[in-house]
Amino acid sequence: MDGKKAWKQLWLAYGKKKDLGNGKYFENVWLKGFDAEDRMVNSALQELKLGAEGMLGVTPQVKQVEVAPNGDKCLAEAASNDDKCAAEAQPGAGAALCMEKSEKLSPESYSVQENGGKLQILAGDEKGLLYGVFHVLRQISMEKSLAGIAVTCTPDNPLRTYNHWDNMDGSIERGYSGKSFFFENDDIVINDRTRDYARLMASIGINGVVINNVNVKQAATWLITDRYFEKVAQLSEIFADYGIKFFLSLNYAATIELGGIDSADPLDERVIAWWKEKMKECFAKIPNLGGFLVKADSEGRPGPFTYGRTQADGANMLAEAVRPYGGIIIWRCFVYNCRQDWRDYKTDRARAGYDNFIQMDGDYAENVILQIKNGPMDFQIREPISPLLGGLQKTNQMLEVQVAQEYTGHQIDVCYLIPMFKEILDFHTYCKPGADTVADVISGRTMGNKNTGIAAVINTGNDENWTGNYLAAANLYGFGRLAFQTSLSAEEILDEWIPMSISSDPEVIKVVKDILLRSRETYEKYTSPLGIGWMVTPHDHYGCSVDGYEYDRWGTYHRADHLGMGVDRSDKGTGYAQQYYEPNASAYNSMESCPEELLLFFHHVPYTYVLKTGKTLIQHIYDSHFEGYDEAEGFAKAWDGLEGKVDVQVFANVKERFGRQLYNAREWRDQVNTYFYRKSGIPDEKGRTIY
Amino acid sequence: MDGKKAWKQLWLAYGKKKDLGNGKYFENVWLKGFDAEDRMVNSALQELKLGAEGMLGVTPQVKQVEVAPNGDKCLAEAASNDDKCAAEAQPGAGAALCMEKSEKLSPESYSVQENGGKLQILAGDEKGLLYGVFHVLRQISMEKSLAGIAVTCTPDNPLRTYNHWDNMDGSIERGYSGKSFFFENDDIVINDRTRDYARLMASIGINGVVINNVNVKQAATWLITDRYFEKVAQLSEIFADYGIKFFLSLNYAATIELGGIDSADPLDERVIAWWKEKMKECFAKIPNLGGFLVKADSEGRPGPFTYGRTQADGANMLAEAVRPYGGIIIWRCFVYNCRQDWRDYKTDRARAGYDNFIQMDGDYAENVILQIKNGPMDFQIREPISPLLGGLQKTNQMLEVQVAQEYTGHQIDVCYLIPMFKEILDFHTYCKPGADTVADVISGRTMGNKNTGIAAVINTGNDENWTGNYLAAANLYGFGRLAFQTSLSAEEILDEWIPMSISSDPEVIKVVKDILLRSRETYEKYTSPLGIGWMVTPHDHYGCSVDGYEYDRWGTYHRADHLGMGVDRSDKGTGYAQQYYEPNASAYNSMESCPEELLLFFHHVPYTYVLKTGKTLIQHIYDSHFEGYDEAEGFAKAWDGLEGKVDVQVFANVKERFGRQLYNAREWRDQVNTYFYRKSGIPDEKGRTIY
Repeated sequence: MDGKKAWKQLWLAYGKKKDLGNGKYFENVWLKGFDAEDRMVNSALQELKLGAEGMLGVTPQVKQVEVAPNGDKCLAEAASNDDKCAAEAQPGAGAALCMEKSEKLSPESYSVQENGGKLQILAGDEKGLLYGVFHVLRQISMEKSLAGIAVTCTPDNPLRTYNHWDNMDGSIERGYSGKSFFFENDDIVINDRTRDYARLMASIGINGVVINNVNVKQAATWLITDRYFEKVAQLSEIFADYGIKFFLSLNYAATIELGGIDSADPLDERVIAWWKEKMKECFAKIPNLGGFLVKADSEGRPGPFTYGRTQADGANMLAEAVRPYGGIIIWRCFVYNCRQDWRDYKTDRARAGYDNFIQMDGDYAENVILQIKNGPMDFQIREPISPLLGGLQKTNQMLEVQVAQEYTGHQIDVCYLIPMFKEILDFHTYCKPGADTVADVISGRTMGNKNTGIAAVINTGNDENWTGNYLAAANLYGFGRLAFQTSLSAEEILDEWIPMSISSDPEVIKVVKDILLRSRETYEKYTSPLGIGWMVTPHDHYGCSVDGYEYDRWGTYHRADHLGMGVDRSDKGTGYAQQYYEPNASAYNSMESCPEELLLFFHHVPYTYVLKTGKTLIQHIYDSHFEGYDEAEGFAKAWDGLEGKVDVQVFANVKERFGRQLYNAREWRDQVNTYFYRKSGIPDEKGRTIY
Repeated sequence: MDGKKAWKQLWLAYGKKKDLGNGKYFENVWLKGFDAEDRMVNSALQELKLGAEGMLGVTPQVKQVEVAPNGDKCLAEAASNDDKCAAEAQPGAGAALCMEKSEKLSPESYSVQENGGKLQILAGDEKGLLYGVFHVLRQISMEKSLAGIAVTCTPDNPLRTYNHWDNMDGSIERGYSGKSFFFENDDIVINDRTRDYARLMASIGINGVVINNVNVKQAATWLITDRYFEKVAQLSEIFADYGIKFFLSLNYAATIELGGIDSADPLDERVIAWWKEKMKECFAKIPNLGGFLVKADSEGRPGPFTYGRTQADGANMLAEAVRPYGGIIIWRCFVYNCRQDWRDYKTDRARAGYDNFIQMDGDYAENVILQIKNGPMDFQIREPISPLLGGLQKTNQMLEVQVAQEYTGHQIDVCYLIPMFKEILDFHTYCKPGADTVADVISGRTMGNKNTGIAAVINTGNDENWTGNYLAAANLYGFGRLAFQTSLSAEEILDEWIPMSISSDPEVIKVVKDILLRSRETYEKYTSPLGIGWMVTPHDHYGCSVDGYEYDRWGTYHRADHLGMGVDRSDKGTGYAQQYYEPNASAYNSMESCPEELLLFFHHVPYTYVLKTGKTLIQHIYDSHFEGYDEAEGFAKAWDGLEGKVDVQVFANVKERFGRQLYNAREWRDQVNTYFYRKSGIPDEKGRTIY
């Protein structure tokens, strides 16, 4: 594959591929029941052309057959040839690709079949067609023969979104790949990357994007005004070409900051009226607008609590204002006391999401979705699943994960996150027999609701390769694919991404796959142990600082003393374990039955406690940290072995990151081991160097 | 006193004072041997007028008698009255103030005497006169009668400078009182504050000022070019009016950044020639220029080490270039490895200054001065004295202290630093019998040299009250006074400053004095114990973070484990103690003879080690931290009792700071105690709350 193009185009580089008999279908392409002039169909055809030409050297010849039952379009080519409507025209005996609308398929769905030289893409709607085309191109890019293919794909989750934390000054909160490509100097940027971005998103099934940071400040507050409407609309139109709904993060206090009203009370008539008028304006000016994402009453952001109102009061007020336009309000549940006193052992940040949202279950409007972070804390390398997911039984829910590697290595350290996302989706909440996994809840299967889905904080920036560490693009790719088809395994996703993005050389695939599949566990080994989290450099969140957050106000403590460590969240402690359904609640509640990877999240454990492996806790800490570093070293060496087998730029980029990862892993290993040795006084059984 | 004016004018507010018979002298003022038109004499007369009018309601009537032996000026008033030269004119029988040049007095010296209604200021030169006038005004401001006064004052230190760490963008490195009043948006600011600043400096005997940060970057590199010469000269002229030499910090790499030469090698002929030309230009364009301050090879700054040259090579090359103009080069000794590995127990930052500079003792040009921080580390609340001071026996030395409260409370916490400076000055280095204190060394008494002195990093900014916390002005004042007259006690300085700046109400004096005199010890009690230093929030340096620097690259470690803490700098450890002369070296070397306030600086000590008080180390930590907080609370309460007795603005300012100090002290107390309790497992004997 052409690595040079992949550096800038990722998995859509469309470098030369083995034909494997795939080229022939594209010499004769039929479009039936779709209008070639439709924006999404046009995008699909453009992509087909790009892909077929780039990968197979064939230029598709597209013939349009009637559009719809009322038949006001006919076969374009036939018409020009013999001036006669050819509604009944069909491909002849040779190989062909037929793309056809099917009323049997639901919106966004498609099926791809091949039989006797006829390749068929059936789709429920234009977006389904676009996804079907990307599916076919993916097979070619993976160098798989299309002969005999027979798949039908319906997305598992209604909403599949990426959230950008881009600020209008061009900075990105928790961005590790350069600056924003949407904003610069308080202005909106539209350039080559914009369309490429939309193509990348559509190719993995993303159907919604929030372009600005949930912390809406300064200029971003004005995105819903005439100052920006024109450019915002222009940007959103590009997304519309690719079936991507356009979302904005909203400043809950806009009535004050823009409206000149001295309140943001959701029950204040002036506030209600202002938002109704504002939403009318927004949806008129931005036709592709899907709705808004709101972070309220969180980490210093304003919200309904300020006025003694509930989160439901706030969300429903906005929902009512966007309802006439089919808009939705995505309301984040990241509400906790971020001014905790570290001396306070009773307050538990882990409890906050559930405590703040559970009572109003069922009170939210039908077009409100609560967006819930995967864990009760904040995107750590290991956390239990948020008990709100499935805990809420009458409320639309969206899962939020973080593809940006805030706590997982800043796209310096390699950390393939899909295995973690799989664990989250597969987690049994026990909320409803037979449909109790997180995947069930957010797909709508549990409650039969349709405003549900999955969101991820994105890891992109204006770095040439989009994601800083080239290997981090596996997460960018993987999240979308998983959101679309939850049943895909972490390994299957790599089986797609590696040949599309790096090489189809089996040795390269083997090495890269091994690194990526093990990387999350390795990262966990050399960082914070057994679910305790943090121990990171304050603010920055990269690099070790065992006590960095221990005496701070964020509710993120390890409570280590000379005898043991961990937070007691059992019924003898903060009682957090009781927020789960049984049997999870009991399992977490006792030190013996608690899954050991979460032991320190739920319990304060003596260093001498013996784990199921037969090791003491302290020995586990030493061993895992030595192992983690050694594994990272192994990854770096394995990567070195790929020199000459992957694109030089990709090779150099990843090699440079591994250099920094090893430095980081060594610091983590030595700082954590030294910290706990100095605190416990218990030496390493194996006598390795601890400082 | 008029507190309202003092808020903006500090000790030069000149509010109404009790006359006490002082007013009468100013009705009849004679100037003899001085030219009233001389810039410094003019400043002295202006000040006399301001002070006498403001404090006593008298406007001085000045009569000028002949200027010099050659007598080309005569009594101005007499001349206008009877057109006759009155060179022999003398004050009559009534009260009068006579200001007269005296050849018996050395430059900068003065004597003030009163006898039979005649008050006399004799001075060795114009600057001495200025200082003499400020002396007289100080007496009035303190509400002391001038009757019978008889003092002669000669400054103890030739150079008495304040160093600004102001950047040209207006920020101040380690500034805690607003922005710079010298720079804004890469331009030079000259306004009302400029002259007030010069007056304040002259009033306490400061005779040199470095206006820009020692870390010379960006625009500041261009201060020695035509881009800024005009305004720099204008600024320096204002200082000249008050006898203050003007200094700039220099970018050692200016040959590269300005000169277009690809080197800064001090032995490179191109470099030497460029500096010669540049210095010629600088001294021509800035007539009041005294020379330059240089931070080289330090914390990332360029220097001669880059070219394999010595610090002496670098300093002497610049010194040669400024020599023709009487200029001096002040070369900082803050050179250490700021990329240390925390795992490395052998490298000792404390050793670095001595190790880097001692070998070249005697190699420095006569117009080079080495500026040496008071301690071997960096301005901690408690450190031993730098062994370089007096360790160097053939090199000009200047002591550098920090009035800006970087590690001593950010001008939020009250911390009167003069007692610390006194300890430093009084320290016996044992470098030479009979003249071995630091005060001896930097005054020139030890070696008979004249390019010596004392410098302080200043604590001012554009806050209305100059120093953030109004009480921090006691340090601003005190440093200057102490630099001028080393024998002044910390208490005597407060006896001047409090009535001049706050009130002469005995109760107010008593309370403020008690707070200030105890404040340094209190701050020490609740922060890092027994000389260990740091334990502060990284970068910011305010607030507790026990492990904040423990695993970092700065060479600043406490090495605490479950058994004990402290750094072994004895001959069994890093050997730092051997850098001192005997008997200091032996005293520091053993745990038993080491002064206990420095115990953890020199030794790794078990928590169970019994101090001379009979307390164990760990109990000392607990007790001192509880005491420190309680004392701070006592200060705040005592200040509250002054409501109505001091200016409302001053009262509110200091009260607000005490609020923040208590928050900080409580955090320090609880974090330090908790940290060491968790680590040692040893409970507080008194059973107080530790978390």
